[in-house]
Amino acid sequence: MINQDTIVALATPSGAGAIAVIRLSGADAIRIADSCFRSVTSKKTLIDQKTHTIHLGHIMEANRTIDEVLVSVFKNPNSYTGEDVVEVSCHGSNYIQQEIIQLFLRNGCRMATAGEFTLRAFLNGKLDLSQAEAVADLISSDNEAAHQIAMQQMRGGFSSEIAKLREELLNFASLIELELDFAEEDVEFADRTQFKDLVERIRFVLKRLIDSFAVGNVIKNGIPVAIVGEPNVGKSTLLNALLNEERAIVSEIAGTTRDTIEDEISIGGIGFRFIDTAGIRETKDVVESIGIKKTFEKIEQAQVVIYLFESDVISYDSEKSQSLKLEIEKIKNKYPQKPLLIVANKIDKLENEEINNLNVILSEVEKSEYILLSAKKGIGVENLKDKLLSFVNTGALKNNDTIVTNSRHYDSLLKAFVEIDKVKHGLDSGLSGDLLAIDIRQALYYFGEITGEITNDDLLGNIFANFCIGK
Amino acid sequence: MINQDTIVALATPSGAGAIAVIRLSGADAIRIADSCFRSVTSKKTLIDQKTHTIHLGHIMEANRTIDEVLVSVFKNPNSYTGEDVVEVSCHGSNYIQQEIIQLFLRNGCRMATAGEFTLRAFLNGKLDLSQAEAVADLISSDNEAAHQIAMQQMRGGFSSEIAKLREELLNFASLIELELDFAEEDVEFADRTQFKDLVERIRFVLKRLIDSFAVGNVIKNGIPVAIVGEPNVGKSTLLNALLNEERAIVSEIAGTTRDTIEDEISIGGIGFRFIDTAGIRETKDVVESIGIKKTFEKIEQAQVVIYLFESDVISYDSEKSQSLKLEIEKIKNKYPQKPLLIVANKIDKLENEEINNLNVILSEVEKSEYILLSAKKGIGVENLKDKLLSFVNTGALKNNDTIVTNSRHYDSLLKAFVEIDKVKHGLDSGLSGDLLAIDIRQALYYFGEITGEITNDDLLGNIFANFCIGK
Repeated sequence: MINQDTIVALATPSGAGAIAVIRLSGADAIRIADSCFRSVTSKKTLIDQKTHTIHLGHIMEANRTIDEVLVSVFKNPNSYTGEDVVEVSCHGSNYIQQEIIQLFLRNGCRMATAGEFTLRAFLNGKLDLSQAEAVADLISSDNEAAHQIAMQQMRGGFSSEIAKLREELLNFASLIELELDFAEEDVEFADRTQFKDLVERIRFVLKRLIDSFAVGNVIKNGIPVAIVGEPNVGKSTLLNALLNEERAIVSEIAGTTRDTIEDEISIGGIGFRFIDTAGIRETKDVVESIGIKKTFEKIEQAQVVIYLFESDVISYDSEKSQSLKLEIEKIKNKYPQKPLLIVANKIDKLENEEINNLNVILSEVEKSEYILLSAKKGIGVENLKDKLLSFVNTGALKNNDTIVTNSRHYDSLLKAFVEIDKVKHGLDSGLSGDLLAIDIRQALYYFGEITGEITNDDLLGNIFANFCIGK
Repeated sequence: MINQDTIVALATPSGAGAIAVIRLSGADAIRIADSCFRSVTSKKTLIDQKTHTIHLGHIMEANRTIDEVLVSVFKNPNSYTGEDVVEVSCHGSNYIQQEIIQLFLRNGCRMATAGEFTLRAFLNGKLDLSQAEAVADLISSDNEAAHQIAMQQMRGGFSSEIAKLREELLNFASLIELELDFAEEDVEFADRTQFKDLVERIRFVLKRLIDSFAVGNVIKNGIPVAIVGEPNVGKSTLLNALLNEERAIVSEIAGTTRDTIEDEISIGGIGFRFIDTAGIRETKDVVESIGIKKTFEKIEQAQVVIYLFESDVISYDSEKSQSLKLEIEKIKNKYPQKPLLIVANKIDKLENEEINNLNVILSEVEKSEYILLSAKKGIGVENLKDKLLSFVNTGALKNNDTIVTNSRHYDSLLKAFVEIDKVKHGLDSGLSGDLLAIDIRQALYYFGEITGEITNDDLLGNIFANFCIGK
């Protein structure tokens, strides 16, 4: 099943950096690398070098030097893929990266497809399927919680939980199938009471894993938060204030993109994606009303809606405070099931009396929660963070429980749950062993799908197509 | 002079990729890495491992696993910087990169400044100054010629040429200074005829190097080419046609940015930067005339101007052909010193007779060169490439001569040339040895500036500030 080609790809992000790493894997990896390499320090060929060693030299095409490089040699099975692997660490220009990859292609490699290195690691038994999937999650993790879950899954936490259940279930399946061989003697190798216990336990664990997907999904993709409000009410000041500590850490590191940070903020290790919206106050103009339609569409995607306004606007004008109430009512009526957070900004500009006044107005807006803050002065920002975090059930995360983030796993778990339920009802109604065995086998099949004991080419193709090339 | 801190930086481009490499250098590099590392396979500490070996394990903060990584150990002096160096190859998520760098910072590293790894390599005698500068050139090289020159310079081709001249000159300087010690005896240790020969040789080499800067500069920065023409005359089809072969090669490699390629094209290994301009035909409108002003400004930056037009427009309409002539005259008169290439596109749509007609019209436009082509059908494109290449003097490149691309080197060479000229005149006019010695010493000073035998902190600061962090 494993394709025998030697594959090559850039393993580091494309673009210019100090260095880039080009990775080869396959039976000919070391021979091909050696044929393009002239060592500075050693007369041995790369083939004769020990595994896990690094060699300084030049990548040459005939007498033309393409680059001075470091070559790392990993010998099978002690490599990421389980095959012979060579990593070439070259200068980070696009031109050099391409020249070296082209040279390897001309010397018998082919370009790796997306995820092919990890696919080979799976096929060679270095990782199970859920661990392999965790590699992609780990690479795309951009906050503490997503990272923690991916790391747990990559280190086998999820697989071992599934594998344990599967093994116990397999035991019972074997015993029940053994009974079928002795059908005429009416023996019962599988203790039905113990078996009922096991089925209950499996249902319990499956239920917990299935339920964890809600929080897992949120952690993996971030929580979408729509901020609704007029221009200039201080939205970007608020984002900057929320971002404050992280930014200080991040700014030292080269190349951190400012735009991305402003849209996605990590609070308490959970990612929040802030969705920009147009104001929804004016309604006369046609163009304006298209903007408002879009705003409502965006609110629909959000899990939490923040309504941000400038507090001094309403503190002395009863007409404006009335229109504010109307607007809040409008959002609440349109999306009764969305948590709405009313945030009054710029309270540093108010007198105590005006703050009291504001509190009165806002508490009249029934059932919604509100926060007074000053993004500029940093007043009330921690309060907002706590409030946002309260929308996430982080219990499972804190308890270090296994959390399902992968919709494929979720799907298989749901199917396994249905089968286990059938087994439970079968047991309760005294179903015969041969029919019971069929449902158990089906449940086992879905367990096997998660860890990759049961696979097919389509499934593998789908999974690894989502990887980046070079991994 | 070398700062004793242990420094850390991301060495690979920022952004998500399969892997990222974090580099540490300094006396504590191995100890700090070891304190955050738990090996999977070995009980030895990293300090006890051999140089140029790779170790699989986990980066840990207390009991929290940040990532599974490969750690490469390089022991001084056998490393890039000449110090102890550790490279951590981790999963390529931004989050993980930042967590690991932060961990090392908390454990006693500090962030490296731009180019600090290479600065240390220079200060530790691993590279001379012109070689260190070539590292940055190599990383930014994006075509064959720029790459070839940077590689030659990095491997010491440039330095050794300068060093050889410097040594010969130093010999004579010593002999002449020795004469001064025996001034009363009127001896002549330095043979004046041989010395004149040497000075002539040095002048010749310096002249060649100084002249090479014109082509070196072009190769390093690409040749700016302005394409002037109405919209829809086929500019982007032409760029695609020029790009054709390169694109086929490039497209296999992930992440090659399309936009960049369309603007910068490598022809015969030389980079050409195409500058987009607005049409310059209409002149009635105010807004339009601003556009035209901008176009003329862009033409000013260009080294070659291509005037592209649709050939079928003029083949049957004498008024249009007249306005074409006027327009070409306008550009020629405004920029008499810029090479102007008249390119008639879409000739595949013309009959033979019309092509003859076109040839007559275009050859009437005196002194400018013209090309008939069809970008879509690929007719005449090679012709255009040859013509563009003919604007670059690639002689030196083909002869593998040393080419100066660095304006700092150019500056020092010019100054050395002035001093050598003084020495020559001094020799011709029989100047006394003590005065001659002063001019020779001054010339030697400028040679030393190039290779870094003579430096100061300001100079080094300027040079390495242009590097990326991590190199």
